[in-house]
Amino acid sequence: MKTSILMLTLSALSVGFSAAAEPIKIIQPAKITEPDKVELGKMLYFEPRLSKSGFISCNSCHNLSLGGVDAIPTSIGDRWQQGPINAPTVLNADFMLAQFWDGRAKDLQEQAGGPIANPKEMGFTHELAVKTVASMPAYREKFAKVYGSDVVDIDKITDAIAAFEKTLVTPNSPFDQYLAGDEQAISADAKAGYDLFKGHGCVACHNGPAVGGTAYMKMGLVKPFHTDNPAEGRKAVTGKDSDNMVFKVPTLRNIELTYPYFHDGSVWTLAEAVNTMSDVQTGQQLTAEETTQMVAFLRSLTGDQPQVVLPVLPPSNEVTPRPQPFTN
Amino acid sequence: MKTSILMLTLSALSVGFSAAAEPIKIIQPAKITEPDKVELGKMLYFEPRLSKSGFISCNSCHNLSLGGVDAIPTSIGDRWQQGPINAPTVLNADFMLAQFWDGRAKDLQEQAGGPIANPKEMGFTHELAVKTVASMPAYREKFAKVYGSDVVDIDKITDAIAAFEKTLVTPNSPFDQYLAGDEQAISADAKAGYDLFKGHGCVACHNGPAVGGTAYMKMGLVKPFHTDNPAEGRKAVTGKDSDNMVFKVPTLRNIELTYPYFHDGSVWTLAEAVNTMSDVQTGQQLTAEETTQMVAFLRSLTGDQPQVVLPVLPPSNEVTPRPQPFTN
Repeated sequence: MKTSILMLTLSALSVGFSAAAEPIKIIQPAKITEPDKVELGKMLYFEPRLSKSGFISCNSCHNLSLGGVDAIPTSIGDRWQQGPINAPTVLNADFMLAQFWDGRAKDLQEQAGGPIANPKEMGFTHELAVKTVASMPAYREKFAKVYGSDVVDIDKITDAIAAFEKTLVTPNSPFDQYLAGDEQAISADAKAGYDLFKGHGCVACHNGPAVGGTAYMKMGLVKPFHTDNPAEGRKAVTGKDSDNMVFKVPTLRNIELTYPYFHDGSVWTLAEAVNTMSDVQTGQQLTAEETTQMVAFLRSLTGDQPQVVLPVLPPSNEVTPRPQPFTN
Repeated sequence: MKTSILMLTLSALSVGFSAAAEPIKIIQPAKITEPDKVELGKMLYFEPRLSKSGFISCNSCHNLSLGGVDAIPTSIGDRWQQGPINAPTVLNADFMLAQFWDGRAKDLQEQAGGPIANPKEMGFTHELAVKTVASMPAYREKFAKVYGSDVVDIDKITDAIAAFEKTLVTPNSPFDQYLAGDEQAISADAKAGYDLFKGHGCVACHNGPAVGGTAYMKMGLVKPFHTDNPAEGRKAVTGKDSDNMVFKVPTLRNIELTYPYFHDGSVWTLAEAVNTMSDVQTGQQLTAEETTQMVAFLRSLTGDQPQVVLPVLPPSNEVTPRPQPFTN
């Protein structure tokens, strides 16, 4: 392993390319140090009984078969309520400086508690979520093993979910292989697209291992971004007018999978997304060839998707709160 | 393997118990002869883009984390419409003489086409389902490999889904181990429960490897079964008044997982289900001890759950029909 990294480094140096100097960094696979907690978190991530209806789990809107998103403009919540904003991907989400488009949750654990209790999402309460999980002996045994006590609380539930989510990293994309020194890993178009991506200033926001997620930025920086979506972005958190339409910069990792694009989910193709962003954020128009190259670069950011064995969940029993799918 | 089966058989004989003579048969794991077709079928089973909303897949209502059911009385369909009947488990479903509670589909392939096009379930059309799948090159390659042609049609889609579903068998339950000769595999209560199950005539309907699914039977055979559910059962298929309230006998495999019970999903506990069935089907009342024993027997029917690696689905593209989650 050490030898092969050394060889790749030497190979990269030999073509005058230093990964260390690039604004986009190789993304490293997650190191799993607490496998029992991760396994418990996976169960809870797929647990539809954390919702009022018994039908919606974390995976419903952050579907690990679909790049960690639901691939619709805004999500479907309890009783088919329409969500206010496009569901961001859970993949590589731990690399974000904060969670949600407006960064209102400081980390994955804080995020995980939000949808459970949001009346428009899972529609449940933390109290009922805890009661549900605690009702099942198989869960209590796992909590005891992981936390040293079988007392279930919402902090443990969200901590375990976050531990699972931290493992959802997608390394080894063609672009990472290229950064590691494999010149053949991406096409000439993708290389030209990467040069454009840097040259046009996209890397000012989309940088680091997640190619984003390290800053907040105004959507419509040089020209207004037109949308019907009423989301105010950071303003909703800080109360400052200057934060209106300022959102967390999304990751571009696996962007080919996480359509439709933008916080309003209004754009379905990478070509249109690239052209819109170039226009409203940098004021530059791309030629058709440049768009093709930029899209080729973005497609090279699709990494190895997590291999997830579907958890088998313990059965409800007499004391488990019953789902209420059709009652108000 | 052969030796161990022989030993188990001898051991069974030595205690005067012959599995061959029992009305319930050991369930054998599925033999996978077409792994590529099964893999394709698994992708389609988890494919929410087979629904109008892009949100509902086969796994939504036949959740492999939850014993192959949705664990609510009747299912949630497109735009949160309430389904008419309790979703039967997909586990061991190939052992049923026909599919759906009323047996209106002759096999798993015919069943698979139903929910896709049912306006109250996935709300799509077969035409759009085909167009969606065919739009993605990664799917077309898999169809070419499995079927010798990359032309997608609904028969191939449902054939592949059925091939995956046929693998969803749950062998090795404690009761199967007991049938195979391991006297210690189930409790004394479970053994007493099995004797009651035979003695009270339950095996007249619940027999064979799936402990059911081999016949149709009137619900409310000796006393009326009271329900608000308007389902007519076989009458809806045959038109005969004598088939009113005649349903396919459900499997009792994994019955601990597949609550709530009966075609109307009205009963949440095994104890109540056992007492109701004993009353309305056989006219016999069970003592509290007998109920406990019967439930212990039923719990011994939970087998090894399928280990399913979540499929990674190919991305939509410009020609893929877009989901319509919030339009009529």
